Amino acid sequence: MIKRSDKIGIIGLGLLGGSYAKGFYNAGYRVYGIDIDPEAIAFAKRMKWIVEGGDDPALLSDCDIVISALYPRLFVEWIKENQHVFKEGIILSDVTGIKRQVIEEVNAVLRKDIEFIACHPMAGREYKGIAYADCNQFETSNFIIVPTENNSERAKEAGYDIGRILRFKTISELSPEEHDDIIGFVSQLCHVIAISLMNLSENEKLVDYTGDSFRDLTRIANINENLWPELFICNKDNLLKHIDALEQQVHILRDYIEEENIEAMKALMVEATARRKKFDRK
Amino acid sequence: MIKRSDKIGIIGLGLLGGSYAKGFYNAGYRVYGIDIDPEAIAFAKRMKWIVEGGDDPALLSDCDIVISALYPRLFVEWIKENQHVFKEGIILSDVTGIKRQVIEEVNAVLRKDIEFIACHPMAGREYKGIAYADCNQFETSNFIIVPTENNSERAKEAGYDIGRILRFKTISELSPEEHDDIIGFVSQLCHVIAISLMNLSENEKLVDYTGDSFRDLTRIANINENLWPELFICNKDNLLKHIDALEQQVHILRDYIEEENIEAMKALMVEATARRKKFDRK
Repeated sequence: MIKRSDKIGIIGLGLLGGSYAKGFYNAGYRVYGIDIDPEAIAFAKRMKWIVEGGDDPALLSDCDIVISALYPRLFVEWIKENQHVFKEGIILSDVTGIKRQVIEEVNAVLRKDIEFIACHPMAGREYKGIAYADCNQFETSNFIIVPTENNSERAKEAGYDIGRILRFKTISELSPEEHDDIIGFVSQLCHVIAISLMNLSENEKLVDYTGDSFRDLTRIANINENLWPELFICNKDNLLKHIDALEQQVHILRDYIEEENIEAMKALMVEATARRKKFDRK
Repeated sequence: MIKRSDKIGIIGLGLLGGSYAKGFYNAGYRVYGIDIDPEAIAFAKRMKWIVEGGDDPALLSDCDIVISALYPRLFVEWIKENQHVFKEGIILSDVTGIKRQVIEEVNAVLRKDIEFIACHPMAGREYKGIAYADCNQFETSNFIIVPTENNSERAKEAGYDIGRILRFKTISELSPEEHDDIIGFVSQLCHVIAISLMNLSENEKLVDYTGDSFRDLTRIANINENLWPELFICNKDNLLKHIDALEQQVHILRDYIEEENIEAMKALMVEATARRKKFDRK
């Protein structure tokens, strides 16, 4: 449970870390920020999102809740090197997009008095950096808590509190295995498709012949190349499975087109239309 | 060239036909509409988009410019049966999403005194029906004129005029072969992907774990099953070629993921990001 007097520490003031700082600030919390980039710290201070910040981990020594908004591997390294600054019994959380490996590696090195509750705010953007930070998007986004069987009710409750304080639209729980499987599908597979589609044609004039379809399917082809290869590799087993399944599904439709099987095509379209309706924003 | 006094006939008052009627009406033209659905006619009359309308083709006998907003095969059938009502020397245009076959079949049956200039407004939507008609979307959309070598300057100019009167963002020309190749890529391939992705998982709870990526890539999975199988079949050669190319492109990235080749993945992401920037709306 997060109390109103709890101090919130955020490691990494990028797009998501900055949005978290802003969201906690808006909700009346005292936020402390760590970043190696002095400009990110200066920006967050100017906006009043953090009361104190810098590159010294000791700035988090009085925090009750610490949230890492670092890339997965950097997160594990940071904890190894700097967790000695934390006071006893704090709750640690994160924003990482893949979970099994992060949870295992963090818990393998984490102090025994500190509990890690993994969370995934599904609010990434095709931009990077604190200048794009925006916590309004949380109100239309999903928040997933990813507990292990070793997590206490207290830590899970802190996860729900983070989602509630930041005003996420839905808050749900998935096991690390379920999470990585589903994320491999709804997020990573979509990025693989967008990158591939974007790289398929060198036609410079394509933009003049384009409707919204291509624009929609490639929005996320604008991708952070320093983060995503790591996410793909950490979830390789699931992602490869989903890529292979997509390929088979495309082949079904491809064959119907080749055979000019109108009724079979219609059935796939009716099914897709019915399923898609559930995803329309209310 | 379209004169301000020219009467505009529109065959088929669905989403696009209705938007055309509204756009020409807004620009001060007198529009006549044909539809077998009395409700579509009543709607267009109530909105004042058409001065006269009904299911009788003879209502178009005084029109100078006639635009078909019917599905491709229906368009050809309609011309065969009803072109006798047109006055001499008019210009015929359309909104069809595929061109080679339509141009060939229409020209094969068309009266010699009438000239057909094929046009493709890239402003389809994932809805159908005149109730969704909206000509504002044209201002952010591309308009493609698809002349053959037999088209006169006068007919091409009429194509440009349609694009200008309806306030399309860009107007360009493509040959029927170029058009169908490019549309097979930027539109049809995207619909194949969206349908396949949407049909891939039966997980009813997916909507609670979804970010914007999956939502974006499947928007067009909400698809008119009475129109699209016909569009796919009419452009089968191009579409199958693009599906096969996409599959190869996905495989390149798939193999890099399997090999954990970070540098190669980064290069694909940097390339995709650079290309995508050109498609951002200004």
